[in-house]
Amino acid sequence: MTTPDSAASILAARYQKIRAFSLELCSTLSAEDCGIQTMPDVSPARWHLAHTTWFFETFILAKRPGHKPFDANFTYLFNSYYNAVGDQYPRHQRGLLSRPNLAEVQEYRRYVDECMADVFASEEALADAAERIEVGLHHEQQHQELILTDIKHVLAHNPLFPVYREASFMKADPPAVDRWIQHAEGTYWIGASGDGFSFDNESPSHREFIDAFELNSDLVSCGDYIEFIEDGGYRRPELWLSLGWEDLREQRFGAPLYWRRVGNAYHHYTLAGELEVDPALPVCHVSYFEADAFARWSGARLPTEAEWEVASKSVAVDGNFVDSLLSAGRAVHPADSVAGDAPIRRMFGDVWEWTASPYTGYPGFSPPEGALGEYNGKFMCNQYVLRGGSCATSRDHIRHTYRNFFPPEARWQFSGIRLARGSAPKR
Amino acid sequence: MTTPDSAASILAARYQKIRAFSLELCSTLSAEDCGIQTMPDVSPARWHLAHTTWFFETFILAKRPGHKPFDANFTYLFNSYYNAVGDQYPRHQRGLLSRPNLAEVQEYRRYVDECMADVFASEEALADAAERIEVGLHHEQQHQELILTDIKHVLAHNPLFPVYREASFMKADPPAVDRWIQHAEGTYWIGASGDGFSFDNESPSHREFIDAFELNSDLVSCGDYIEFIEDGGYRRPELWLSLGWEDLREQRFGAPLYWRRVGNAYHHYTLAGELEVDPALPVCHVSYFEADAFARWSGARLPTEAEWEVASKSVAVDGNFVDSLLSAGRAVHPADSVAGDAPIRRMFGDVWEWTASPYTGYPGFSPPEGALGEYNGKFMCNQYVLRGGSCATSRDHIRHTYRNFFPPEARWQFSGIRLARGSAPKR
Amino acid sequence: MTTPDSAASILAARYQKIRAFSLELCSTLSAEDCGIQTMPDVSPARWHLAHTTWFFETFILAKRPGHKPFDANFTYLFNSYYNAVGDQYPRHQRGLLSRPNLAEVQEYRRYVDECMADVFASEEALADAAERIEVGLHHEQQHQELILTDIKHVLAHNPLFPVYREASFMKADPPAVDRWIQHAEGTYWIGASGDGFSFDNESPSHREFIDAFELNSDLVSCGDYIEFIEDGGYRRPELWLSLGWEDLREQRFGAPLYWRRVGNAYHHYTLAGELEVDPALPVCHVSYFEADAFARWSGARLPTEAEWEVASKSVAVDGNFVDSLLSAGRAVHPADSVAGDAPIRRMFGDVWEWTASPYTGYPGFSPPEGALGEYNGKFMCNQYVLRGGSCATSRDHIRHTYRNFFPPEARWQFSGIRLARGSAPKR
Amino acid sequence: MTTPDSAASILAARYQKIRAFSLELCSTLSAEDCGIQTMPDVSPARWHLAHTTWFFETFILAKRPGHKPFDANFTYLFNSYYNAVGDQYPRHQRGLLSRPNLAEVQEYRRYVDECMADVFASEEALADAAERIEVGLHHEQQHQELILTDIKHVLAHNPLFPVYREASFMKADPPAVDRWIQHAEGTYWIGASGDGFSFDNESPSHREFIDAFELNSDLVSCGDYIEFIEDGGYRRPELWLSLGWEDLREQRFGAPLYWRRVGNAYHHYTLAGELEVDPALPVCHVSYFEADAFARWSGARLPTEAEWEVASKSVAVDGNFVDSLLSAGRAVHPADSVAGDAPIRRMFGDVWEWTASPYTGYPGFSPPEGALGEYNGKFMCNQYVLRGGSCATSRDHIRHTYRNFFPPEARWQFSGIRLARGSAPKR
Repeated sequence: MTTPDSAASILAARYQKIRAFSLELCSTLSAEDCGIQTMPDVSPARWHLAHTTWFFETFILAKRPGHKPFDANFTYLFNSYYNAVGDQYPRHQRGLLSRPNLAEVQEYRRYVDECMADVFASEEALADAAERIEVGLHHEQQHQELILTDIKHVLAHNPLFPVYREASFMKADPPAVDRWIQHAEGTYWIGASGDGFSFDNESPSHREFIDAFELNSDLVSCGDYIEFIEDGGYRRPELWLSLGWEDLREQRFGAPLYWRRVGNAYHHYTLAGELEVDPALPVCHVSYFEADAFARWSGARLPTEAEWEVASKSVAVDGNFVDSLLSAGRAVHPADSVAGDAPIRRMFGDVWEWTASPYTGYPGFSPPEGALGEYNGKFMCNQYVLRGGSCATSRDHIRHTYRNFFPPEARWQFSGIRLARGSAPKR
Repeated sequence: MTTPDSAASILAARYQKIRAFSLELCSTLSAEDCGIQTMPDVSPARWHLAHTTWFFETFILAKRPGHKPFDANFTYLFNSYYNAVGDQYPRHQRGLLSRPNLAEVQEYRRYVDECMADVFASEEALADAAERIEVGLHHEQQHQELILTDIKHVLAHNPLFPVYREASFMKADPPAVDRWIQHAEGTYWIGASGDGFSFDNESPSHREFIDAFELNSDLVSCGDYIEFIEDGGYRRPELWLSLGWEDLREQRFGAPLYWRRVGNAYHHYTLAGELEVDPALPVCHVSYFEADAFARWSGARLPTEAEWEVASKSVAVDGNFVDSLLSAGRAVHPADSVAGDAPIRRMFGDVWEWTASPYTGYPGFSPPEGALGEYNGKFMCNQYVLRGGSCATSRDHIRHTYRNFFPPEARWQFSGIRLARGSAPKR
Repeated sequence: MTTPDSAASILAARYQKIRAFSLELCSTLSAEDCGIQTMPDVSPARWHLAHTTWFFETFILAKRPGHKPFDANFTYLFNSYYNAVGDQYPRHQRGLLSRPNLAEVQEYRRYVDECMADVFASEEALADAAERIEVGLHHEQQHQELILTDIKHVLAHNPLFPVYREASFMKADPPAVDRWIQHAEGTYWIGASGDGFSFDNESPSHREFIDAFELNSDLVSCGDYIEFIEDGGYRRPELWLSLGWEDLREQRFGAPLYWRRVGNAYHHYTLAGELEVDPALPVCHVSYFEADAFARWSGARLPTEAEWEVASKSVAVDGNFVDSLLSAGRAVHPADSVAGDAPIRRMFGDVWEWTASPYTGYPGFSPPEGALGEYNGKFMCNQYVLRGGSCATSRDHIRHTYRNFFPPEARWQFSGIRLARGSAPKR
Repeated sequence: MTTPDSAASILAARYQKIRAFSLELCSTLSAEDCGIQTMPDVSPARWHLAHTTWFFETFILAKRPGHKPFDANFTYLFNSYYNAVGDQYPRHQRGLLSRPNLAEVQEYRRYVDECMADVFASEEALADAAERIEVGLHHEQQHQELILTDIKHVLAHNPLFPVYREASFMKADPPAVDRWIQHAEGTYWIGASGDGFSFDNESPSHREFIDAFELNSDLVSCGDYIEFIEDGGYRRPELWLSLGWEDLREQRFGAPLYWRRVGNAYHHYTLAGELEVDPALPVCHVSYFEADAFARWSGARLPTEAEWEVASKSVAVDGNFVDSLLSAGRAVHPADSVAGDAPIRRMFGDVWEWTASPYTGYPGFSPPEGALGEYNGKFMCNQYVLRGGSCATSRDHIRHTYRNFFPPEARWQFSGIRLARGSAPKR
């Protein structure tokens, strides 16, 4: 049985491990690498290191009497979007700051970690803060994923195509035989039931009626996607949502992000350098618009998030995640092999799966009071839900009910496609 | 009993009436008025007159052997967004064309009406075309509403504040006592059941599980809304969706569209000229962001479209519509009195009611083949559903299942607010 | 000998003639044509008709006791850029106004003309106002040229390519033998000497030292310019100013404005419709950047405005102007024949000639006090001087010392090229 | 007597000194500081260090047989604007590159310096390259000034207002009594006569006729400028060029760059940190528009560059320059004291002086063949000439005939104001 004491030490150990992992992710990067912002959605790695630290200082330490802030200016500089905390340094200009530099941010991290050690050492303080510490750790794990997707965008922009971290790719396993897993119509409970940590947007648990549907047993592969491209997928407006077609024509792309045509082949930039695309790997770095167009082209559709959640319940949270990939010396990329023999493959890890569901609050949803209420709720507009985590997600960060969300045009996340289909309901 | 003949003559009569109504809506406008486009979302009235005519020529006449087009260039000039028909003259530049001018467009309308008379005269031709004629008539009614909202935007931009049509306002009835109508949880059928005309996006009829909820018995009034403004509604980020707050700060507004502060009062531009705001009238020209912020401020929320549809079934399609308002010499504006004594007021007419539902396809939705498949489906992204019709809608155009949709920042439609609330579900 | 009375009646006659000519220029246009603004630099013809009238009302009538303004709102609506008069309706939105409409603007013109008749009838009033009337008439002539260049831009934008005014083109005379006219070095007086009307920017007369130079005897022809195009002129950055090369790459053009490639030939839109380019005609609708690149390609350069003025003194103000072209039923376009036998051809009329001279104040220049001081001086930045008038200029509007000016990227004026060359000075 | 050998060793010594000075200017900066680009006009310090090195490699080493490039990608990455050399990495994205990092760029500098040592060691190689080496050294000195102005912009953007280099300010000497130095009318030779190094844009030497004029004996001070501000200088459109007034209203500033109002005082950010403005110091960081408006307000005008050059001939090239300021431990800023007792003060050093002259080629100017011909000539459009060097210029870089040039809106250079006046010429 877990005593309160050991709960504290488990949390403290988790804190140390997660905080250290942020630094490990930056360990192959130079001070210069950590400062670049290639588009408004991308933040410099140094900013992520500082902001995640700011989170603990703001929501835990600053509420403790006598806490001396590391630098009072940081309240403003490293606030991302919490209006209740105060004004924010403009997001799209995060790459214009050279101070505090990387060494100073590391010093900031050490300072906050030391102050947090005092919290862990005090039973009372910890009791008060434990829930917010848990949020802070999940928050930092989210930014760890962003460190990876953002540095990928930064390095891919450089004509030298620098490697983030050397790693070898193996030839991928051939995809499993294409199978459709059937699910019966019914009223299902959706959302987090309250056991273990979950974000506010996963609640309340509620019922949804779902028509009978089928979900594909595997992700769409690069080979499948190349067929779509070569069948004129990017030139046929009838396959696209109107906004997606506009986006395509303005941005002038004809393949997933990071791909380029080299002779008769496609190459793509990965965190282990530029490589020829392996058709057996899951496709990733596609927008919702691309996922939706591909699905339409293939005569199927994207699943709703409720369908995805119902189907996912049959498998455990297992797959290719950042922690296992890194420790095995493998590239942070949808992986070349799949553990296990489940009838449905890769539901977790590898790539975030676009769903057809706009990101909204569940029935009865209401964000918590105060600044932390700004965490999720205010973004419930013009975004789509993605499910299942990716190769850049930590294994203990993801859940069956976890809801990620991005605007439909976003492509720089490890986002891929799983197909669904279902007959029209009858009355 | 209705013979086929009389069905034809009913349709022909409807055609004549609806086509004539488009011209009547422009009868107080000069040639210059009919040519202006004040923002990309607004089209010149002359363009609406031509495009609705193009619709009949393209989808009915052009398919008839021997049809001689009025002007071959019009295929391109007046195509709105049908990629399957061909390229389109750029939407945001519709105000840059002076030719064909108003007289020529009227000539074009007469020519197409004459050709259509031949269709009505041929039993066989009519049998083939009737369904598409019906779509064309509903399409023209949609553009009639846009003629009104667009000319309102055009005239309101002019510092002279010209009057579209003289009409008198009466002092409005006081709103009914604020009441909440309760609805029980359950699985409901939503969507068009197939009796009578409906658009493709209203189908398939399907089941949705809905938690118990309450819907307000009346629309939010201007007086309610002024309270929100005066309580700092436009200065408190915690009330707003993040995108809405950005929109607000960029556009710098602090009241519904067409309102301005004059001393201690609010005035608003209406199609009958600028007036002081009557607090008893329903508020309109608010965005989804404003509707959502108002709801949050008032401790309630917006209804989902399914909730709205379920609740609406208890009342008939009745209210203040453009045809009755015009024929009574009243302003095209949410009206100063309400017919009837229903427990729930103004569900139809007056203002479109923003729902909390992003615009998506119903389960099993698939658009028809061909160009008409582009009518609704491809716009199912980053828009919200509005229900119930407005003072600028024709009475016979609206239905319980009718789904209108606009992006969340849109304010130039007659869009207003009805509140809902409901307790969180329990497991 | 001219008595004061006859001076008055001459001025009154000129007033009537010039005012009538503005209306004549619009006589082939519909109300719709007169309302379009296709880019910020273009104003609707209706705006020109109103603004030129506003000029007389503001600078002459409004200063008379008892003058009743036609509409007090016009002070704001039709003020172009006179800060001393008050705020201005935004320039780039002139096409968004439908009121006052064309009939009302014509009414405004009649009203002001009637009020002006009272001024002409009063010896005292006229004495006070004559100088400003003269400015107003030259001002209106400038806007007459803009009516033509702006409606050309408007009609050329329309895919129907409507004709402004039917007119026949003849095959042009072959250009004269290419000759270089020599001019000796020396100190020359430049600028208006004070006889007759001139704008403030033509003064003070002052001395400039000019090195020996040669000026070409004729304008650059379309045939010459096609050689430049076909020699890769638009693809060779070494021929272009840096800003010009950027402009070219952003706007993506490869020929003068209104030209398009049709098979092996070039066609261009003219005010008499679209035609094949006649190689013998002077090239026009080129920017300063194009003129400069052409000159560099041909091993020559553009003349300075002082060189142009010195050289022009040898010829009279004669050539193809809008009044003679229109009354002869010829197109408003650089003309197919040249009167006279001067050694240097087309110095006046046909096309404005870009000079190498940035538009600056002459030594000792200082604008007059008051609003009219804003006429020219405040625009002396980032523009280049053009000389000689064009086919859209009235003959009695132009002078040897006349300085027109446009930004280097402007192409919608009738602007062309005359080459100069000169050996480097020796010390 | 100087032997050829000693000429070589003098040039080699100059090379070493100038190259070392670039590094010294960056010696107080972190790797992060050296990577930031706060606006398109600003380049990261690291880019300057690389580009100046690229210049020697491209124009000297690459022409030597057997030269092995340090990295073939640098040809593209560090080409600024030489189309004849090849394509260029986009200028406005220089801040988006993290590789090569600072250490690698320093390595690049060492490599090129070693290769250059071989050139200095070979009489023949040096004879061939000496002229281009001289250009390369002046080029590097220009970029040294930009390193300072750019890092000032970068650091001033940071809300922490970091100090570039600690330095003390003394209370400035009071300005000399305001005096006007008279110059007689006449024809003067302007431009470089060929003794010693000069850029192509300083030639040919040529004659200009200049009217009598007066030039002020000192620069405009901050105190003078504060009077202008407090007299409503930034709120009175009649003082401004039209483009300047637009710029002002869009950018919303009301004081020189880096100034801000603190209570009743003005503070400004300097390279030694933020300080209260000393009214006795010369004003700087003003645009041409501000300089011109100030001159108009004060009843004077800016001098032409010919006037400035004629007047400057009476004084030697002496003043506050970057090398003397740094070696004296003083701030890189217009200085608090002036050496000497000349009747006209601060003609050289302290601040670049805006002239009224648009930047054009002198009569007979023609740029050299090849890529180096792109150095100056292609920028002769929409820029104004500044004269005299600044506190960020090296003393041996400046000359009486030196022409600097910037667009009229540029404010981030050390640009200030000297007034002229002159009576209008008479004929």
